[in-house]
Amino acid sequence: MSSALLLRDCPPLAGDRTEYSWKMAAAVVRAAVLRAVAFAGLRGAQVRRASGVSDESEVAKAQKAAPGGAAPTIFSRILDRSLPADILFEDQQCLVFSDVAPQAPVHFLVIPKKPIPRISQAEEEDQQLLGHLLLVAKKIAKAKGLGDGYRLVINDGKMGAQSVYHLHIHVLGGRQLQWPPG
Amino acid sequence: MSSALLLRDCPPLAGDRTEYSWKMAAAVVRAAVLRAVAFAGLRGAQVRRASGVSDESEVAKAQKAAPGGAAPTIFSRILDRSLPADILFEDQQCLVFSDVAPQAPVHFLVIPKKPIPRISQAEEEDQQLLGHLLLVAKKIAKAKGLGDGYRLVINDGKMGAQSVYHLHIHVLGGRQLQWPPG
Repeated sequence: MSSALLLRDCPPLAGDRTEYSWKMAAAVVRAAVLRAVAFAGLRGAQVRRASGVSDESEVAKAQKAAPGGAAPTIFSRILDRSLPADILFEDQQCLVFSDVAPQAPVHFLVIPKKPIPRISQAEEEDQQLLGHLLLVAKKIAKAKGLGDGYRLVINDGKMGAQSVYHLHIHVLGGRQLQWPPG
Repeated sequence: MSSALLLRDCPPLAGDRTEYSWKMAAAVVRAAVLRAVAFAGLRGAQVRRASGVSDESEVAKAQKAAPGGAAPTIFSRILDRSLPADILFEDQQCLVFSDVAPQAPVHFLVIPKKPIPRISQAEEEDQQLLGHLLLVAKKIAKAKGLGDGYRLVINDGKMGAQSVYHLHIHVLGGRQLQWPPG
């Protein structure tokens, strides 16, 4: 995974900073602010509405979530780009994006493109993919500056508070994580 | 992984139950009770003393734990059998044993035999091993009757509350896990 891939959402750097006038710099800042406001507002609200994230707790959602296999989930809609997300990384096997209801200053999800509903339904043939997801999780954590540590969490089923039945690894950092883990 | 391996700590089943006399059955029960008492008392206390588990919180320990690489840890001592543990499963790549300071009715750890200090120090060459650890975690969870769900947790570094610098996956179940996860 190259750093270029990690920074794919950033505008390309000019070869020489002197090419930028202050006017252009101001325009870039304005665009960035508008984009941030749009994401935090309109797009975030769309995602929250679609997932019901802001309306109830993860545990309450987990009680109601259907552990069915084939039905599309909010994550399959993020994968096919019919729902927006703050995407941090993508490769042929997985997608990484910010959690819309963050529980820490840094909180993102790593999901496989293959629609494995939950870790308890992973198969032997998924071994390489599962290892890849963990390696991607630790790489993005490093890229996000979490050198002092972080926590990876995989919820399975109702007792594990799994609210979306598409396997996902939570990565939380930027604050002291407590014990017990929920 | 065969079910025979999962049940390796149980006495071998006789081909025909009628071979067992009541006297033998009573002896087996007595031995099991003695073993359980010995584990809960003497051996458990040894482990707790060695790890300091009962004296301070996981987070406090994490603040003091040395993230050094090569030093032996409590887990390497469990691996070489110089410290006792309630071992649930073992194969060529990993060991599974009960957490001595359980945070849920079922709480066990899956560790690689390879001494990877923390997930942030895993390498590309560990991909297959990491996938294997997750598959073993979900198999032992099933064997432990956690069909209603559970949570997998990997702590990295101080902010993640990692207290032993030998990679380990916590598996917690048997109660409703809460959110946020610590």
